[in-house]
Amino acid sequence: MTLELAAEVGYAGLNIEAVARRAGVGKHTIYRRWPSKPALLLDALSRVWITDLDYDDTGDVRADLREQFLRSAPALANPPIGPVYRGLIAEAQTDPALRATLHERFLLTVERRTLDRITRAQHAGELVAGVDLEFAAEVLCGTLYYRHLLSTRPIDEGTVDALLDMFMAAYGTTR
Amino acid sequence: MTLELAAEVGYAGLNIEAVARRAGVGKHTIYRRWPSKPALLLDALSRVWITDLDYDDTGDVRADLREQFLRSAPALANPPIGPVYRGLIAEAQTDPALRATLHERFLLTVERRTLDRITRAQHAGELVAGVDLEFAAEVLCGTLYYRHLLSTRPIDEGTVDALLDMFMAAYGTTR
Repeated sequence: MTLELAAEVGYAGLNIEAVARRAGVGKHTIYRRWPSKPALLLDALSRVWITDLDYDDTGDVRADLREQFLRSAPALANPPIGPVYRGLIAEAQTDPALRATLHERFLLTVERRTLDRITRAQHAGELVAGVDLEFAAEVLCGTLYYRHLLSTRPIDEGTVDALLDMFMAAYGTTR
Repeated sequence: MTLELAAEVGYAGLNIEAVARRAGVGKHTIYRRWPSKPALLLDALSRVWITDLDYDDTGDVRADLREQFLRSAPALANPPIGPVYRGLIAEAQTDPALRATLHERFLLTVERRTLDRITRAQHAGELVAGVDLEFAAEVLCGTLYYRHLLSTRPIDEGTVDALLDMFMAAYGTTR
């Protein structure tokens, strides 16, 4: 409901009064549970989003990363998630506490799931042993976020393939 | 002068009237040249920043990238550049035209200079031939921007070394 309303009025136009009106409750009911607009939106986002972040494990790490990146890119770019998430990221630039929360609840979650998947690939012998895969997970996520937030270029198949070419060239055992 | 004022009052607190007052001119004098606050700040930023982005060419690509990344990271994090640049990036999240301008004038400039340096390394035989270095330049820049904008972690020597380890593992001829 919150995200639907956000999709209608935009991140900047959304406020707790409007959410309360749409929900048919008093605004204090909302404030009791969510002390601020970012807190409300973070919870709304995590309900629709986090459940869909899992990687497949087909035994082919490159294919599984590719599938998940191509699936999550449009989800991040379009409603209901895209504009609200972008608005929160913008607000986090001048609010270090929000940035820390956003990092912990979303970005670090994505990185950790990525790390889990590539660590399994390392154990299966698809990736070389003894490399810092935690940082590799950050590079994979970071490159896609950078393109999404700071460029005018889309995250398309060519992007994902170029990223995975680099990743496998650096860490694959068959490089 | 604009950036000094921005450092005092913050990105959100800055407006063209205040800049005109500080400069001792009428606000129309400012508006004639810069139609908006982002336009004014983009010009102010580019005067202090772009000149300092060049890479050394000592013949050791890893050392030259490392030196430039460690030099530019604090410049991006601290005044006069840091807070204004962060404010523009935030505003660009809800303003696609500003995002395109920011991308063209700053991020793409950094990527192209990075591409120049690593292309020279490829010609010198330090990096393997036949790989997509344009995307590699995006990965290098993107990873650092991601950490700067979306995490609570600093860009320190460990970060830069881990990034360059990955880069050289993927593209170095001595891997």
